[in-house]
Amino acid sequence: MPDDADTPSGRRFLGTDRLAAYSDGVFAIAATLLVLDIAVHPPGTPLQQVLRAWPSYLAYLVSFLTIGAAWLGHTSLTDRLARSDLIFLQINLLVLLVVAFLPFPTRLVADALHDQDAERVAVTFYGLTLLAIRALGTGLDAYARRQHLYTPREDSDEALAPRRRLLPVVIEYVTAIVIGLVLPTAAVVLYCGIAVYLIVPLREVRRLLFRHT
Amino acid sequence: MPDDADTPSGRRFLGTDRLAAYSDGVFAIAATLLVLDIAVHPPGTPLQQVLRAWPSYLAYLVSFLTIGAAWLGHTSLTDRLARSDLIFLQINLLVLLVVAFLPFPTRLVADALHDQDAERVAVTFYGLTLLAIRALGTGLDAYARRQHLYTPREDSDEALAPRRRLLPVVIEYVTAIVIGLVLPTAAVVLYCGIAVYLIVPLREVRRLLFRHT
Amino acid sequence: MPDDADTPSGRRFLGTDRLAAYSDGVFAIAATLLVLDIAVHPPGTPLQQVLRAWPSYLAYLVSFLTIGAAWLGHTSLTDRLARSDLIFLQINLLVLLVVAFLPFPTRLVADALHDQDAERVAVTFYGLTLLAIRALGTGLDAYARRQHLYTPREDSDEALAPRRRLLPVVIEYVTAIVIGLVLPTAAVVLYCGIAVYLIVPLREVRRLLFRHT
Amino acid sequence: MPDDADTPSGRRFLGTDRLAAYSDGVFAIAATLLVLDIAVHPPGTPLQQVLRAWPSYLAYLVSFLTIGAAWLGHTSLTDRLARSDLIFLQINLLVLLVVAFLPFPTRLVADALHDQDAERVAVTFYGLTLLAIRALGTGLDAYARRQHLYTPREDSDEALAPRRRLLPVVIEYVTAIVIGLVLPTAAVVLYCGIAVYLIVPLREVRRLLFRHT
Repeated sequence: MPDDADTPSGRRFLGTDRLAAYSDGVFAIAATLLVLDIAVHPPGTPLQQVLRAWPSYLAYLVSFLTIGAAWLGHTSLTDRLARSDLIFLQINLLVLLVVAFLPFPTRLVADALHDQDAERVAVTFYGLTLLAIRALGTGLDAYARRQHLYTPREDSDEALAPRRRLLPVVIEYVTAIVIGLVLPTAAVVLYCGIAVYLIVPLREVRRLLFRHT
Repeated sequence: MPDDADTPSGRRFLGTDRLAAYSDGVFAIAATLLVLDIAVHPPGTPLQQVLRAWPSYLAYLVSFLTIGAAWLGHTSLTDRLARSDLIFLQINLLVLLVVAFLPFPTRLVADALHDQDAERVAVTFYGLTLLAIRALGTGLDAYARRQHLYTPREDSDEALAPRRRLLPVVIEYVTAIVIGLVLPTAAVVLYCGIAVYLIVPLREVRRLLFRHT
Repeated sequence: MPDDADTPSGRRFLGTDRLAAYSDGVFAIAATLLVLDIAVHPPGTPLQQVLRAWPSYLAYLVSFLTIGAAWLGHTSLTDRLARSDLIFLQINLLVLLVVAFLPFPTRLVADALHDQDAERVAVTFYGLTLLAIRALGTGLDAYARRQHLYTPREDSDEALAPRRRLLPVVIEYVTAIVIGLVLPTAAVVLYCGIAVYLIVPLREVRRLLFRHT
Repeated sequence: MPDDADTPSGRRFLGTDRLAAYSDGVFAIAATLLVLDIAVHPPGTPLQQVLRAWPSYLAYLVSFLTIGAAWLGHTSLTDRLARSDLIFLQINLLVLLVVAFLPFPTRLVADALHDQDAERVAVTFYGLTLLAIRALGTGLDAYARRQHLYTPREDSDEALAPRRRLLPVVIEYVTAIVIGLVLPTAAVVLYCGIAVYLIVPLREVRRLLFRHT
């Protein structure tokens, strides 16, 4: 009787709506704070300054989409929760800790993308943070499955799809991080591609392309 | 049977309340972050400095009202949703991406409004961002209509009013952007007028004026 | 038939929960952003720097409590709403516009409180913003009463108490603003007193003091 | 008849969901704003700069976990509330006031951790703020118990556990603050330990270790 044994802890059946509200808040704030790190810098005409800030825009785009993808995954995860426990909350806090940290490496990338050496450091740091967000998000999902926290209907095999997607994503991130040691900008473009792929899965693209055939 | 075919994706019937919470968060944070870019600058007595910062106040006003108008439209849109799908979520993320980006061109306008050349660039960039918010918001509405995501009762012709308002708004924004190439401050005042018009539609003004006749 | 006539506008019966969520978001963010303007400045030992920053702490305290009081009033107002209309939403946006603006004059006060001249300007600007928050909040309440937006049970005379409190508060703010022209720090202390009084009304204090007699 | 006597105040039965939403907002924003104070500073290669910023990362970690622990405590507290009263709201505002203040001493610690003298001041200030968060959170719980604001089922002895944890935590914080006067970095590590302990209580650790025996 594992459930009864846990009741005295008083937190075991914490409502998942508060968890969702706090998490949504952190995701939304982290995504919106990204704009504070976009800036134009003096040399050049006003138009040149605005155009030369493109690494800021790219970093904003990648981080916003990555947080958006993480939020989508988190939402589809917590919406299926029947209950939550203390360890789930702890892993969730770790996910939020890394998501809320993302604006810092994003700023490093935006500031460094004109200096070869700083670029390599910033882009690698950035890639590791993106990888950590993905890995912890998958860890949260794996824990929820193992402890049967999901509502029964969703515990069926049709819900397995998102889980299978971890390994290719890890491989892609690691590949992008390695490429980033030589070609930092290429790595940022790859991170962008991964974020887009997480939001717009290939299955969906295929469905759209072949809908009318 | 389009609906059944989509069920296995696991996200197709994502609750619209989480979507609304995340979106409300981004709208509210973007609107509240605007204040961070208001600043007074050294030359002059304290009173002169506070008064000379009027472009900051104007830019704050326009952006706050534009986000407010976008939020009003988004709320009235999502409140009528019966369900949501992945593409809807993706367009919604794009809307939020541009709304959360608005504080950056707002800051450019606030910083530039004493320098002719920077003004033109900043005000044009600002106008394009405002136009993108409006266009994406309307795209979201159009998609929801085409896919019949709204509750049936609202899918009637009485709900057509907001849709018809897009074309005049696009024309106004484009006109204001063109005017802004010559008279940047006038363009900002026009953007303010569009935001007020979106929040206080003419129909409402007419109703108020002639209520007692 | 005023209600029927408004139905076609499609927004007339906007749910009040989204309004509450967006407003709560703006109140919470404005209150939490205040901390970004607290700073220590170079001359002196570390301890002296931390102690000499007291005007920042005082300004933080007053603004946080004022936003807290405004939120309390706004919550007790929106919780009693049976419905909302477009004009209510517009007044509410104005309330939020001024609340979200408060961190700016707060920063002015924190930065100026060692310079006589800047102090007078900052404290007056600050007082006018506080007054505007209070006046708009009362305007929102007055509008909701006149249009019978509240649930019937609450429309009785027992709910009149908060309304009666406007005039003394306006008098207090105006008095404090005038005093602030001569003694700025005294005015900030008075603003603090008004905020505390709005959160802890005299009636409540009296009840606490004489509870056991 | 204490409850009847309070009804005329109009706020006595304020819904606890708005209170929870506002509090969740402040907790989430305060936690997410912490990232703004992480920064790298010029001397050294890019990699050295990123590595040398470790005090920023440590301060971010401790503050994020402390806010997370405070949020967990606050959530488990407000979820058990049957009703709320004005004094409860006032104590809650004080809790939020101190939580929202935390990013300031966090920034002091991050900025000072390379200068002996500034370190001592910053770490002590930081410790006092952490202690105030804990003490006020416990005060809120104590008040709710005394006034029987909790739902009856939870007012039983199984819910006593969190209350008993206050004294050791106060002793630990005071010890860490005293140690910090001599070894500031050690104190920050201790603060980190307390935050982890509040999130992962020993009882839970023991349960995990001996689950399979």
